[in-house]
Amino acid sequence: MALRVLGIDPGLTRCGFGVVDVEANRRASLVDVGVVGTHSEEPLDQRLLAISLAVDEWLDRHRPDVLAVERVFSQLNVSTVMGTAQASGIVIAAAARRGIPVALHTPTEVKAAVTGNGQADKTAVTKMVTRILRLQAPPRPADAADALALAITHAWRGNGLAVPAAASAAGPGGTGSGLTPAQRAWAEAEARAKRGRR
Amino acid sequence: MALRVLGIDPGLTRCGFGVVDVEANRRASLVDVGVVGTHSEEPLDQRLLAISLAVDEWLDRHRPDVLAVERVFSQLNVSTVMGTAQASGIVIAAAARRGIPVALHTPTEVKAAVTGNGQADKTAVTKMVTRILRLQAPPRPADAADALALAITHAWRGNGLAVPAAASAAGPGGTGSGLTPAQRAWAEAEARAKRGRR
Repeated sequence: MALRVLGIDPGLTRCGFGVVDVEANRRASLVDVGVVGTHSEEPLDQRLLAISLAVDEWLDRHRPDVLAVERVFSQLNVSTVMGTAQASGIVIAAAARRGIPVALHTPTEVKAAVTGNGQADKTAVTKMVTRILRLQAPPRPADAADALALAITHAWRGNGLAVPAAASAAGPGGTGSGLTPAQRAWAEAEARAKRGRR
Repeated sequence: MALRVLGIDPGLTRCGFGVVDVEANRRASLVDVGVVGTHSEEPLDQRLLAISLAVDEWLDRHRPDVLAVERVFSQLNVSTVMGTAQASGIVIAAAARRGIPVALHTPTEVKAAVTGNGQADKTAVTKMVTRILRLQAPPRPADAADALALAITHAWRGNGLAVPAAASAAGPGGTGSGLTPAQRAWAEAEARAKRGRR
């Protein structure tokens, strides 16, 4: 009984995808990982179309129980943040159209969950993702590690899973779409595993 | 032989839609206008889903030749610009999925095209939209006037129409998706009308 999480690190130039199966005892396994890139010379509508088609393909191929997306902030680099926000809107709507719950996590939450340090650098995150997923080598392409870290973070934090949808909606991590039957079963199994550890 | 333009003023709280038919002699007629709103208490995924479904409905119902969208800038109000960018991404991808060309126009371009003054206020824009479309009263809801102004601007500026797709891609107004047969015919008719005026 594993929870399948699709993590997406949205971006216009590079959009990272990572799918992991996470058991109730927190053991996580790599299912698939990849990056979809678009070129800045392409027209904006064609770039967003490529991302839209890629998201649909990943959702259809892996049928995740939940989508975890990086929460986009208006950073200092305003030239890239608009494209990132446009990509994230497409990604979130694509999951919502399929009734798949969506959860948002900040980069700090992801770094803290995976490495124990919210200020960890990219190398440390990649190293821990490699270890958590029991891989022989760091995941390729390198910039897809963030998407895997997002997916692991979501399952480990239990956002939108162990808490009722109504409470989750008010919290910072979930968007409150409720639990799928698979998520509910996983949350119950996780609760049993926690009791067993005590 | 009219060009049908769907103008969308993207936003998470209020997303404006306006459809106009524009003849080659620049005469513009109102086809439909409306606003889709979502509440800030709703989960983000459900808000973006509502916008995604609304865009599809407007595209399917009116089958526009081209979509004109307000170009989103990272404004001072960062709390709303992210939602606006997410909505615009969904809107642009929805048109691209149908092969409908997308053009972006700045608020200044819209104000200049409709009123002759790039710094015009909302009242002036609404007044001119009402006059251009030969309406008895200002369009309702009031904040949908911007979407109609966008659509009129696009047809009048001829962006993505009178210029080849390749040149349009490099320019500020178009996203270079090429011309549909209807657009090509309209551009030719417009060129004839211009010659006739000389």
